[in-house]
Amino acid sequence: MSVRVLFSAPKSDWEDYREVLAAAVADLAVNATFEHAVFPDNPEAVDYIVYAPSSRLSDFGPFTGAKAVLNLWAGVENVVTNPTLTQPLARMVDPGLTEGMVEWCVAHVMRHHLMTDRDVCRSNAAWEPFVPPLARDRPVTILGLGALGRAVGQALAALNFPVTGWSRSEKSVDGMTCLAGETGLRQALATAEILVLLLPLTPETEDLLDADRLALLPKGAVVINPGRGPLIDDGALIAALDKGDLAHATLDVFRTEPLPESHPFWTHLKVTVTPHIASATRPESAARVIAENIRRGEAGEPLLHLVDRKKGY
Amino acid sequence: MSVRVLFSAPKSDWEDYREVLAAAVADLAVNATFEHAVFPDNPEAVDYIVYAPSSRLSDFGPFTGAKAVLNLWAGVENVVTNPTLTQPLARMVDPGLTEGMVEWCVAHVMRHHLMTDRDVCRSNAAWEPFVPPLARDRPVTILGLGALGRAVGQALAALNFPVTGWSRSEKSVDGMTCLAGETGLRQALATAEILVLLLPLTPETEDLLDADRLALLPKGAVVINPGRGPLIDDGALIAALDKGDLAHATLDVFRTEPLPESHPFWTHLKVTVTPHIASATRPESAARVIAENIRRGEAGEPLLHLVDRKKGY
Repeated sequence: MSVRVLFSAPKSDWEDYREVLAAAVADLAVNATFEHAVFPDNPEAVDYIVYAPSSRLSDFGPFTGAKAVLNLWAGVENVVTNPTLTQPLARMVDPGLTEGMVEWCVAHVMRHHLMTDRDVCRSNAAWEPFVPPLARDRPVTILGLGALGRAVGQALAALNFPVTGWSRSEKSVDGMTCLAGETGLRQALATAEILVLLLPLTPETEDLLDADRLALLPKGAVVINPGRGPLIDDGALIAALDKGDLAHATLDVFRTEPLPESHPFWTHLKVTVTPHIASATRPESAARVIAENIRRGEAGEPLLHLVDRKKGY
Repeated sequence: MSVRVLFSAPKSDWEDYREVLAAAVADLAVNATFEHAVFPDNPEAVDYIVYAPSSRLSDFGPFTGAKAVLNLWAGVENVVTNPTLTQPLARMVDPGLTEGMVEWCVAHVMRHHLMTDRDVCRSNAAWEPFVPPLARDRPVTILGLGALGRAVGQALAALNFPVTGWSRSEKSVDGMTCLAGETGLRQALATAEILVLLLPLTPETEDLLDADRLALLPKGAVVINPGRGPLIDDGALIAALDKGDLAHATLDVFRTEPLPESHPFWTHLKVTVTPHIASATRPESAARVIAENIRRGEAGEPLLHLVDRKKGY
């Protein structure tokens, strides 16, 4: 009998995924059928739900036979608090997403490290040589040491940056100085000439970068946020930029997306907005992760990347 | 007796180097005295000449006792052809310069790979998500496999780019596909979505990238030149950009430097000019290389980074 999988995500995702998902389960010799629907017939007979938070599905109650909900994106903050969700929930840890995130972070860290905007965005003649410090003399801090934070930190360490990583609970990552807890956070911020936010969004991390914590950063520091918009207090960030305490912020994620046209970030000279592109899931590699979790579910093996509902990620 | 070293470079270099040179020879227990002069007394008694091509010294004839000329910069094209130079000539291979070059190249390769200019230089509200390919699907070619080309290629390979390296004579570098000769050059250009020029300037490499060779690049390719200005035929490059065959050129080096205000590169929308900053020598690490070569010269050991006068580098 074929495993029945509901693909609960907007139609554009279905177009991107239907072929690669079919290929990925076939590669693992799993007999599964994917269907794209908002309210499928016989929901009790659905075995797995592939779920995008932008789906119109919000009541998991009817899916009494579902063995797991497999999130199509890395962030689960919009689904983990859904009271109807009783099934196990797996996050997406897509190797393609991790690679893309590493590339976006390296690009923007290097950009700020070498201050390339001055030449890249200039249209007049101005021969003004400027020699920045070497990466070995430019301390970078990563907040968040999940799969993304670790990968970004190690890529930056390989480029010679002294990298400090911070997480709520103590962790150890090769090539990085790892700090934890509130004291560790203050220390991690105090040395961060470039700060990269890769924390999950939870009640504890919302507004983590408020005015007090922003004030701990060295003068002239740069904040890069490819994590989640609400990690930063937007007003406090703008105030710190306007006062000259911070040199720049490059932001990929926002409290409201798309970022409203009237938001001051768009026109602020010290803010770069990118349209939530740092962490694009790549269908081919993501489909392989989903297929592997279906195979595991059917074989009675533990699922990959299960969400701890208490922690929220 | 103290070894007598002439520091033949502009005064601003002397200010940057005098202390770090004294410290570097002291660290190696070499008893050497550096003097900054254009026409020193008793030139026949000078043991070594530290030389910047911007120095006013052009006649090496009077330095009959000099055991070597130690170039302060990586490029030697302005001194290697000097007929009065009979002393051994060493290039500068500064680990700080190599690190800085790797950082500049990584920054600009990532910038073009992710097309970050569209967001970085934009000042209006425009939420237009765009997902570039992953680095693993973006072939990069490096022309030149000296110390700089190898280091840049390996850093890009570590970031997942498929890297092809080309050099005149056959070489082998871990993690890169290495090609050589004219056939290899055509192949290296044909696959280069991003091309980085790190060749020395010699009669053979002048105008290497002419109209014919530029036409071998894939449509939409980007050219990055942190090597030497005359490697490219400027007119052919502008023509290829104007026709839309090439997407962009990021240039750090030019036939005339500073680049004259009237040069079309300054205002061309598809050209980024950086003011010869990719390969800045860092005094501390460069001083250690010079001190080591003086130590070797005095100990009768072979000098590091000796120039092959026939090859020109």
